[in-house]
Amino acid sequence: MSDMAEQLLTAARNAGVTIATAESCTAGMISAALTDVAGSSDMFDRGFVTYTNDAKQQMLGVSSHTLQKFGAVSEQVAREMCLGALKHSDANLAVSVTGIAGPGGSEHKPEGRVCFGIVRTGKEPRLETVEFGAIGRANVRQKTVEHALALLFAQINDAKQR
Amino acid sequence: MSDMAEQLLTAARNAGVTIATAESCTAGMISAALTDVAGSSDMFDRGFVTYTNDAKQQMLGVSSHTLQKFGAVSEQVAREMCLGALKHSDANLAVSVTGIAGPGGSEHKPEGRVCFGIVRTGKEPRLETVEFGAIGRANVRQKTVEHALALLFAQINDAKQR
Repeated sequence: MSDMAEQLLTAARNAGVTIATAESCTAGMISAALTDVAGSSDMFDRGFVTYTNDAKQQMLGVSSHTLQKFGAVSEQVAREMCLGALKHSDANLAVSVTGIAGPGGSEHKPEGRVCFGIVRTGKEPRLETVEFGAIGRANVRQKTVEHALALLFAQINDAKQR
Repeated sequence: MSDMAEQLLTAARNAGVTIATAESCTAGMISAALTDVAGSSDMFDRGFVTYTNDAKQQMLGVSSHTLQKFGAVSEQVAREMCLGALKHSDANLAVSVTGIAGPGGSEHKPEGRVCFGIVRTGKEPRLETVEFGAIGRANVRQKTVEHALALLFAQINDAKQR
């Protein structure tokens, strides 16, 4: 994980990118991974660990309507989470994750489903749902972190090319 | 770490305690540890990963005066961080950490110095500075998480007895 953070840090510095995170099921693992390496304050701004629905609303401005209509684990909520992280931070790139780490499903949704959102200032968010399956709580969370870092890396490389 | 989280969860449920975290140098590792176990939403409310001074001010209401006078790594800032986490959450117990993970010192303070704050609703915060020494970034962060969980455990047991 440190290798990935090191690569991200180099890429982010070159591209002038600063990152905010909005995490539900990983609850800080993504921000922890990003700051594994010395000097990470150059790229990492802040993180919102919004474990409850109230926290998603109060810290990120996710609407109660969206939560009720689509459930916390949905691309619609992931969208509002990453937009909220961008709005309530000094970062220019934000990533969000909301999923079911398990064990067991909830909201009539299967264990291992995770919705991701990623957005750059002035752009439309990109959204994605990944079904990691019933691989266990720790594995779902770990795979979610890796996927989020990969999304950040892709976005930073994309930003650099423009 | 899962064992500790499991014990905390049992104790928190029995005591009716819910937790918020405010993290600087650990950047989400404490909230991640607390949610290692299924059912942790019963005790964990939300986390503030305030890596920058701006984030400490904007998310937790830490005053710029305190930051300037004492520096980010100080008991005074740890105090305002845990009070801010309590104020801006639905939790009744909040823990904060701000330290120098290294490598190298900063603010004329040594690598491995970490200030902790812990506060329950209606009580005065308890503050503590630990010098972990130059044991490396990963070790300082890991020891900080363990110490924070121990502080939470002590506070929850204390709360139960009253």
